[in-house]
Amino acid sequence: MNNSSLTSFFDPHNIAVMGASNNPLKAGYVITNNLLKIKYPKKIFPINRKEDNILGLPAYNTLSEIEDSIEMLILITPSSVIEPVMQDLEKRMQEKGDIKAIVCAAAGYAELDTPEGKHRQKVLTDTAKKYNIRVIGPNCIGVVDNEKRVDTTFVETLTPEENRGIAGGISFISQSGALAASVLMRGASLLSPMKFNKFVSIGNMSDVDFIELLEHFEDDESTRVIGMYMEGYPEGRKLIDTMGCIASKKPIVVLKVGRSEKGATAASSHTGSLAGEDKIYDSAFRQYGIIRVNSIDEMIDTLRAFDQLSLPQGNKFFLTSQAGGPGIFCMDTMSNENIFETPMISEETKKKLKELLPPMANVCSPEGYNDISASANVEQHVEGIRILFNGPEVEGGFLISVLTPFIPQDELGDEIVKLCNDNKNKPLFVVIMSGNVVDKARTIVEEAGIPTFETPDRAVKAAANLIRYSEFKKLNK
Amino acid sequence: MNNSSLTSFFDPHNIAVMGASNNPLKAGYVITNNLLKIKYPKKIFPINRKEDNILGLPAYNTLSEIEDSIEMLILITPSSVIEPVMQDLEKRMQEKGDIKAIVCAAAGYAELDTPEGKHRQKVLTDTAKKYNIRVIGPNCIGVVDNEKRVDTTFVETLTPEENRGIAGGISFISQSGALAASVLMRGASLLSPMKFNKFVSIGNMSDVDFIELLEHFEDDESTRVIGMYMEGYPEGRKLIDTMGCIASKKPIVVLKVGRSEKGATAASSHTGSLAGEDKIYDSAFRQYGIIRVNSIDEMIDTLRAFDQLSLPQGNKFFLTSQAGGPGIFCMDTMSNENIFETPMISEETKKKLKELLPPMANVCSPEGYNDISASANVEQHVEGIRILFNGPEVEGGFLISVLTPFIPQDELGDEIVKLCNDNKNKPLFVVIMSGNVVDKARTIVEEAGIPTFETPDRAVKAAANLIRYSEFKKLNK
Repeated sequence: MNNSSLTSFFDPHNIAVMGASNNPLKAGYVITNNLLKIKYPKKIFPINRKEDNILGLPAYNTLSEIEDSIEMLILITPSSVIEPVMQDLEKRMQEKGDIKAIVCAAAGYAELDTPEGKHRQKVLTDTAKKYNIRVIGPNCIGVVDNEKRVDTTFVETLTPEENRGIAGGISFISQSGALAASVLMRGASLLSPMKFNKFVSIGNMSDVDFIELLEHFEDDESTRVIGMYMEGYPEGRKLIDTMGCIASKKPIVVLKVGRSEKGATAASSHTGSLAGEDKIYDSAFRQYGIIRVNSIDEMIDTLRAFDQLSLPQGNKFFLTSQAGGPGIFCMDTMSNENIFETPMISEETKKKLKELLPPMANVCSPEGYNDISASANVEQHVEGIRILFNGPEVEGGFLISVLTPFIPQDELGDEIVKLCNDNKNKPLFVVIMSGNVVDKARTIVEEAGIPTFETPDRAVKAAANLIRYSEFKKLNK
Repeated sequence: MNNSSLTSFFDPHNIAVMGASNNPLKAGYVITNNLLKIKYPKKIFPINRKEDNILGLPAYNTLSEIEDSIEMLILITPSSVIEPVMQDLEKRMQEKGDIKAIVCAAAGYAELDTPEGKHRQKVLTDTAKKYNIRVIGPNCIGVVDNEKRVDTTFVETLTPEENRGIAGGISFISQSGALAASVLMRGASLLSPMKFNKFVSIGNMSDVDFIELLEHFEDDESTRVIGMYMEGYPEGRKLIDTMGCIASKKPIVVLKVGRSEKGATAASSHTGSLAGEDKIYDSAFRQYGIIRVNSIDEMIDTLRAFDQLSLPQGNKFFLTSQAGGPGIFCMDTMSNENIFETPMISEETKKKLKELLPPMANVCSPEGYNDISASANVEQHVEGIRILFNGPEVEGGFLISVLTPFIPQDELGDEIVKLCNDNKNKPLFVVIMSGNVVDKARTIVEEAGIPTFETPDRAVKAAANLIRYSEFKKLNK
């Protein structure tokens, strides 16, 4: 394991962008612009033979003429010119020997499954290997490190400049560039944008692959949870062993496609890698405590929950709903997950709850469920949960509220934040419904570092995934 | 069946709002404000003993002093004053005899399951019955008719005034007020707001209930599809027969909770109605072609698809994806629905597709799937689908695109609209990913009356539901 060689991807000293452009419709523009917008703290050297400057930065004709040292090279030139580009690289390496990492974003390599494409990829990797340069890609979206303010992607997320470079504990690896772009764009569109730590689209895995990146994230102290989109991998056994080893330390959440026969065939045509026997992966994931999700939304919700909430000590979750219909719907989806246990509340506590809650409320009917009724005020929203969390019976909870115009959103938001901060060891999954009407309350909660969920079923899926991992950890202590 | 008596709820000549208020935190304010904002074309009479005017309208002390005729009365006064309110109503009815419909939005009636609550509800219904007045509620959110510009709800959806009163073909009935509010708020927050025709929160069903409303929607020419949230109903057999009879004419989409034992117990505490045996409902729904959905999002997606797309003639759906990962994911979710059949494309058509699509594209590999590759331009997005739709093998389709900065969103949007308009008998489920980055393209498509979907799995669920209904119709011709 040589993690030091991957460090150059996440904290490079100066970056050259070969194929940088002033045309906003070109990837070489977006990459340069993203580096500027995230305020990459070191130097950016755009390379473009036709322009004198790119986005206000002086442009160079060749790599070899740049005087400063360069640690990372981004390639977005067409694959057809890989040979002269590699000659330029060789010249530089012979003179300065400084580049340690290449992110090759361009497509047109081995994924074409043509002799020409394969040859181009070989030219790239052979040259890189000769000078001990590590390669991510080709045919990838790029790399993000929000801590170090690096963004080599050509994904335009519309994130305002002041919101870029905000790092949480989520590191993500995607085998599909498009899926990676979707997750980035969707994550950036959330009420409170998703806080990635590191983000890698691995493309053709011509050099750096799943295993090495996973090992890098394993040792990376700022990565709390690893997300992964995968289609297949030639050495399935080895990948699963690596994932299993890491999952005993930090959670891995995986969206693996190719479940169906047709999906597997499509995956095989797509990345050229063996789709692998899905059933083998599936049972291995279960055995090793690797969390498999079934949709992009479940991935996003689960990653945020792992990053921002503490792992529940057990599966006894109490549901508090201000709204009957959504509450009952939530009970159904909880049952469906087949992992929650009903917390049995003492008569004494029930008495306290009855005193607190409005007369219309249903207390522990059925067990594990309070319908606090539409007439519940802010105090009645949160204090019942506080009473329950104070007892040993409850290990986590859901709070559902369909805000009426009569509940002050800022007050509710503030009180939920206090409640959560006072009970950090018991995760509360907050669902404030619905649509943009409730943005104010949700934003207050999210800006305090607590995730909120669109709908009860989405909160339940995320909570169930945390419990699954918690149970795995207990069994494998 | 007496539909004429329900017509007063949807097209009333003048409305009185008892309990109207100038305090924005009160339901009586929001109701009056919603009526003003939707530009209810007839007269609104706010009743409030303490104020001279409410939201700029002259206020009255009592119902009986209003000189104009009134067809609908909205009650949002506390349930504790139901007796004097009914006395005022009696006085008016004896003098003018004009009111035909009451929407009682206030809570505090039979749902409390107390003698007092039941008594109050009896006072309300007995008085109404005496004068042949129909009642929706109590304990409900209200009624909307976008065609007639009626909105009696106290749900503040943030919909701009100019976007209110836009009617599509979706009529919705909800047994839960909170669920109704969630659907309204979430529907209003979509890129292109959900186009309800009529919307009813039925609350305690003290008088008007599921069956009568369903029958009303059955005969309502502007209702194309009926959505329903239900917990339980005392006469389950009768309800199912009614639904089955209607479903043979127009689709019914139902979110029924109480699937699980605990959910059923909670439902029984909530609306006081028997939760009913879920399994009986479930098999009856299947038998009668009633579409059961499992989440609020699936409800919204399915209703929009039924309203805005034509019913597919069969289950042979072709998937076109510009993005490998999301495409494979979509194949998996299609397989999972167990209802799609693979369209087998002729060699001649495949040849045409290969000529059209970029060299990197995978044509019909596997069968029924084109990966048009990230390099596909706008023409390559749509023309392949046009070729496929021209043949008899394909009965519907999915289009997935993860927009790169290099595809002009307006051009793609316009071309998708043309493609759909030229092939109205073959529904295309459009997924443009992801987040707010792609709002422009999606908005163009949605404003042309074609739904778009957030993620491939959501499009697949909606399409599968349309196929299920189409198959039911074919079998029951």
